Amino acid sequence: MPESLKDIGEFGLIRKIDELLKREGVQAPGVTLGIGDDTASFKARSGYEILVTCDAVVEGRHFLSRHITPMDLGRRSVMLNISDIGAMGGHPLYALISLGLKDETLVRDIEDMYRGFLAELNPFGASIIGGNLTESGDGIFIDITLIGEVEEGRAVRRSGAKPGDVILVTGYPGHSAAGLQLLVQSLASVEHPLVRAYNKPSHRAREGRTVALTGCATAMIDTSDGFLGDLGHICEESKVGALLALEKFPISEELRVALKILKKEPHEFFLGESDDYQLIITCGAGDVDRIRSAIALTYNGPVTEVGQVTAADKGIRLLLPEGSEQTLSAKGWDHFR
Amino acid sequence: MPESLKDIGEFGLIRKIDELLKREGVQAPGVTLGIGDDTASFKARSGYEILVTCDAVVEGRHFLSRHITPMDLGRRSVMLNISDIGAMGGHPLYALISLGLKDETLVRDIEDMYRGFLAELNPFGASIIGGNLTESGDGIFIDITLIGEVEEGRAVRRSGAKPGDVILVTGYPGHSAAGLQLLVQSLASVEHPLVRAYNKPSHRAREGRTVALTGCATAMIDTSDGFLGDLGHICEESKVGALLALEKFPISEELRVALKILKKEPHEFFLGESDDYQLIITCGAGDVDRIRSAIALTYNGPVTEVGQVTAADKGIRLLLPEGSEQTLSAKGWDHFR
Repeated sequence: MPESLKDIGEFGLIRKIDELLKREGVQAPGVTLGIGDDTASFKARSGYEILVTCDAVVEGRHFLSRHITPMDLGRRSVMLNISDIGAMGGHPLYALISLGLKDETLVRDIEDMYRGFLAELNPFGASIIGGNLTESGDGIFIDITLIGEVEEGRAVRRSGAKPGDVILVTGYPGHSAAGLQLLVQSLASVEHPLVRAYNKPSHRAREGRTVALTGCATAMIDTSDGFLGDLGHICEESKVGALLALEKFPISEELRVALKILKKEPHEFFLGESDDYQLIITCGAGDVDRIRSAIALTYNGPVTEVGQVTAADKGIRLLLPEGSEQTLSAKGWDHFR
Repeated sequence: MPESLKDIGEFGLIRKIDELLKREGVQAPGVTLGIGDDTASFKARSGYEILVTCDAVVEGRHFLSRHITPMDLGRRSVMLNISDIGAMGGHPLYALISLGLKDETLVRDIEDMYRGFLAELNPFGASIIGGNLTESGDGIFIDITLIGEVEEGRAVRRSGAKPGDVILVTGYPGHSAAGLQLLVQSLASVEHPLVRAYNKPSHRAREGRTVALTGCATAMIDTSDGFLGDLGHICEESKVGALLALEKFPISEELRVALKILKKEPHEFFLGESDDYQLIITCGAGDVDRIRSAIALTYNGPVTEVGQVTAADKGIRLLLPEGSEQTLSAKGWDHFR
């Protein structure tokens, strides 16, 4: 019978994780003390700011164990944080993994989850330097704090968008939400490209960093609440509005097919709640080409101009193909509504 | 009817918390970006290392809502982390608060929990710079990442204890465990000093810092797993053993009274699982007075010499009053056994 946490205990698990990290992980620069003391420690580089973010995923709320492998769950959980560091223009360095587990959780599943963390962290030279293990109630949770760095003063915030700026978006926001619908309605297998966009999302962290290094982006955010929700965050923090053109929305062929099956309109998935970890970027009209070139260094998907920043009093509006305008309410993924 | 999370939603709660922090919190030095973007950011001081730790408490596992107020729960949760930073000799600076909440959780309870965080952080000039809110399953969780700083090379680790060193302990380890027993067996009110040691623990973070600044401590740890479990961590990391003298254990009068009611022996609480957030310190015999003086700057409780560090092959032994020795097994609070 496969070993569970109850069999080896917390300290047994810590030892196993420690061995796995030494064997399969990388050592990030600057670490002065890793796992095994009251705290971890590191030395920040001169000329850099430290970025820090945390994000939790909860069983039954953000994932269903029967629909995702432990390795993919690990990748997905740490990727949310990598995406946040990237959306500031930063480089991920150190992760702290806090897990709430059940005593019947299998040790091999936990190890696979850590392999998922490493699959995403190793390519950045980032490492796991600490964390916490505890027993949780009826579902497990994975709460990750990720620390990164960015050259001093070069972080791209949500608050710099100016009226007249162009609104760019990478990839196909909405794919993840459509994939989730296909999955829960049992209309597609886990190999379907949209289901993969949900279960195995990718991130644009490298592109966020190259965009930041151009110095041209006025605001940037990753799409984790859905395009409209996240654009709404930029509008709120920048105190601006936006005018979006429906006919410019990037809708893939795969999504068009799925829309027929799901009986939905294209903009519902594009605008609505969906965690695709793409980037929304605002910049002056003259800087679009530099931003495109920066993204194209590592990403060959679309970068689409979907609208422009306006004054705040107009809110977020949608220009329809026949020329009329509709006011949109920016409401992203709210965990309690 | 009092407002719940369902009534105001995630973003409504974020706004309320943000307002509360601006009104009642302090601004830690070095913060370049606080709550409201993809990440927070700060600038590390030259000549310092960054310390980082995280600790989660889970309803039903680490606390019972009917036995602790939201404010005390907040204090207790962040204190675990402050204690860890202090046990390295560091100073706490920035907290990230990740909460798993139920949609029926009352907004005023969350606000009181934040007041608890601030009650512990404000005196250090430390501030909350980020976090995460999500819905959890059947119980809430509070997962806190705390970042601090320590002068480069001055952190006191678990790994430096040497045979011949003296083992010191502050306060009365075991009080918290005895308080918990009194509480769950309904043998004492929440105002009983031992119950308070459990519900409203204090920490020795300031003392940890002054101890570190003496440069005399060879190892240090805070007692969160229980004296024996935490001494075991020092022995494991330092590759040493220990000889403890039973008759030297600090046992308070309050504990003696409780022991009679609970029908337990003094050493059971002192050695066993208990989260008291006191310090275990090892140092050369000639440095005891300097360590005592450093601690006495801010703490007027006992600092007791309970034994000495030995070679690893002897393990951890207990010297009984009649002169015989007993080998102890270092087993702390294991969440899965």
